[in-house]
Amino acid sequence: MNEIKLFCTATIANISCGFDVLGLALDNVGDEMVVRKVAKKGVTITKIVGQDLPLETHKNVAGVAALALLSKVDTEFGFEIEIYKNIKPGSGIGSSAASSAGAVYGINELLGKPFSNHDLIEFAMQGERLASGVAHADNVAPALLGGFTLVRSTDPLEVIKIAPPSEMYATVIHPQIEVKTSDAREILKNTIPLKTAIAQWGNLGALISGLYTEDYELIGRSLEDKIVEPIRSILIPAFDAVKEVSIEAGALGAGISGSGPSIFALSKGIETAQKVGEAMKNVYQKVGIDYDVHISKINNEGIKIMDN
Amino acid sequence: MNEIKLFCTATIANISCGFDVLGLALDNVGDEMVVRKVAKKGVTITKIVGQDLPLETHKNVAGVAALALLSKVDTEFGFEIEIYKNIKPGSGIGSSAASSAGAVYGINELLGKPFSNHDLIEFAMQGERLASGVAHADNVAPALLGGFTLVRSTDPLEVIKIAPPSEMYATVIHPQIEVKTSDAREILKNTIPLKTAIAQWGNLGALISGLYTEDYELIGRSLEDKIVEPIRSILIPAFDAVKEVSIEAGALGAGISGSGPSIFALSKGIETAQKVGEAMKNVYQKVGIDYDVHISKINNEGIKIMDN
Repeated sequence: MNEIKLFCTATIANISCGFDVLGLALDNVGDEMVVRKVAKKGVTITKIVGQDLPLETHKNVAGVAALALLSKVDTEFGFEIEIYKNIKPGSGIGSSAASSAGAVYGINELLGKPFSNHDLIEFAMQGERLASGVAHADNVAPALLGGFTLVRSTDPLEVIKIAPPSEMYATVIHPQIEVKTSDAREILKNTIPLKTAIAQWGNLGALISGLYTEDYELIGRSLEDKIVEPIRSILIPAFDAVKEVSIEAGALGAGISGSGPSIFALSKGIETAQKVGEAMKNVYQKVGIDYDVHISKINNEGIKIMDN
Repeated sequence: MNEIKLFCTATIANISCGFDVLGLALDNVGDEMVVRKVAKKGVTITKIVGQDLPLETHKNVAGVAALALLSKVDTEFGFEIEIYKNIKPGSGIGSSAASSAGAVYGINELLGKPFSNHDLIEFAMQGERLASGVAHADNVAPALLGGFTLVRSTDPLEVIKIAPPSEMYATVIHPQIEVKTSDAREILKNTIPLKTAIAQWGNLGALISGLYTEDYELIGRSLEDKIVEPIRSILIPAFDAVKEVSIEAGALGAGISGSGPSIFALSKGIETAQKVGEAMKNVYQKVGIDYDVHISKINNEGIKIMDN
C-alpha cells in the first residue's frame, strides 16, 4: 500500500465536567486526507483545499505531527499529504486535531502499523502544541481512538477509551465568530474552590459511570460544569439561551465544545438531536449570527479509512 | 417481625482521588446492633457495649439518625436500640456511620421498608452531622448500599453504587492515635490549583472506569491524591513508610481512610492483602505505635441482617 485516504473526524473536548480530560469523536463531520508514500524523504504538504492554511511542513499541524512520528522510525522514503478541510479552524470541534491525528494515522498505516493508536496520540499532540501552544490530548485522543476518551494522566500519557452508549447523538452549533483558544485559556483562573472541584469530580465520576451503564438520565444530570463554563461562556454570544433551548428540546445536557465558540448538546436518539439542532438555529437566527449545525452519532472507531 | 439483629459494616471514605465523593464497604469489620419495636414511642438507646458513648438519644448518632427517619413517618410505637461497638470511634473507618446507618436500616426493616436504601442515606447523614459537624454521605452511603459508592451530588442527594471487582480486598491499619475529623478538615486549603484538580478528576474518572472493567492495574494507577493526602498525611505517623511498604508488598495503591488515622490499601486477592497487612504492621512495630489491622473483601450488600 502506497497511498491511503482517510476520514478524520471532528471531536468535542471537555464535555462539561470533563475539562481537559474528556473528549468524544463525531462520526459524520470531518476532514479528508490523502497520505502517500514517496521516494523523497521527509514530509511534504502538497495540497490544502477548503481553508487557507500554511503548506510549509513546520508550520502545518499535520506536518509537525508527522515529523514527530518520523523522528522515532528510520525510513528510506517520505510522505506527501493532501488535506481537504471541512472542519473550520477555530470552530472548537478539533480542526487542528483532525489534521494532526490524520497525518500520523495515515503514515502509521503505510509503515505497517509500528505504533498503536494510543502511541500515535503523543505524536499528534505535537500538532496541537503548534496550534494552541499546549500539547493537549483531549481532541487528538478521541480522533485516534473513537468513542469517549479520558486522559487519566499526561505524564506519562495514559488515555482510556470508553465505548459510547449506542443511541447517543451529538448536536453542535458553530456560531461564526472567533474565539482564540489562547484567549479562552487566559481568562481561566489558576485556582478554584475545593468545594467546586469536589462537585466537578462527583459529576465526572458519575458521567463515566453513566457511560458504562448506558444510563442516559445520569449522563444528563452529570453534564454540569461550575468551573470553566461560567467564565468561558461569556465569550460566546447567546450561550445561555442556546443551552436552555437545547435542554427544553430534550437534550440530556449541553455545554461549550472545546474552548468554543461551538456549543454541543448530547441527546438520546437522532430525532431529539435534530429537534435540538432546530432549537439552536432559532436562537442564532434571532440574534443574527451565521452558524453551522452538525448532527452526528458518536463515532466508536476514530479515523476511518475510505475506499479509493 | 419485632426485632432485628444487624451487622453494620465499617467503611473507607475518600479513597485517594475520590475526596468527599467516594466510599467503600468492608465485609467482616463492623458493629452489631439490635433494633426492637416497642410500645413506647420515640427512640431509646438501651445498651452500648464496647465503647463509652452517650446513651441519650439526641447525643447519640444512631439516635439522631433514627429520629430523622421517624420524623417522616407516623408510627404508633417506638424503637429500642442496642449497639455492640467493634469499630473504634475516631479510627477513620466509619464508626459513627455504622451506627447511624444501622439504626435507620433496622427501623426501616421493622416498618416494612417504606424507604429505599438510597432514601435512608439522608437520615443517616444526620448522625454524621452530630459526629463531625458535616452531614456527609461518604461513609453512610457505602454502609447502606455496599460496594463502592460515588456521591454525584449532595443537593439533591444522588449516590451511585458500583459493584466491587470480585477479587478486590482492602487492608486497613489503625494506628492508635487520635486525629479529630474536625482538625483534619480545618487544615485543608479552601482553594486548590486548577491544574491539580484536573489531575485529580482524571484519576477519579479512571478509577470509576477501572471498577467497571475490573482493570486492577488501572485502579492502582488511579489511586493517587495530590490534594488532600499531602496535607493530612502529616497528622499520621509513618504514613509515607506504610504506604511505600504496602505498594512494595503488592498493593494496587494505598491512602488515608476517611480523615485518618487509619491507612488503607487495596489489593487483588486475599494473599496480597495479607502480605500488605504484615508489611504495615512491621512499620508500626518499629515505630512503637499500637495498631489494629483489618483485612476484608469489599462488601457488596451493605448492612447485613444476622440470624438470631
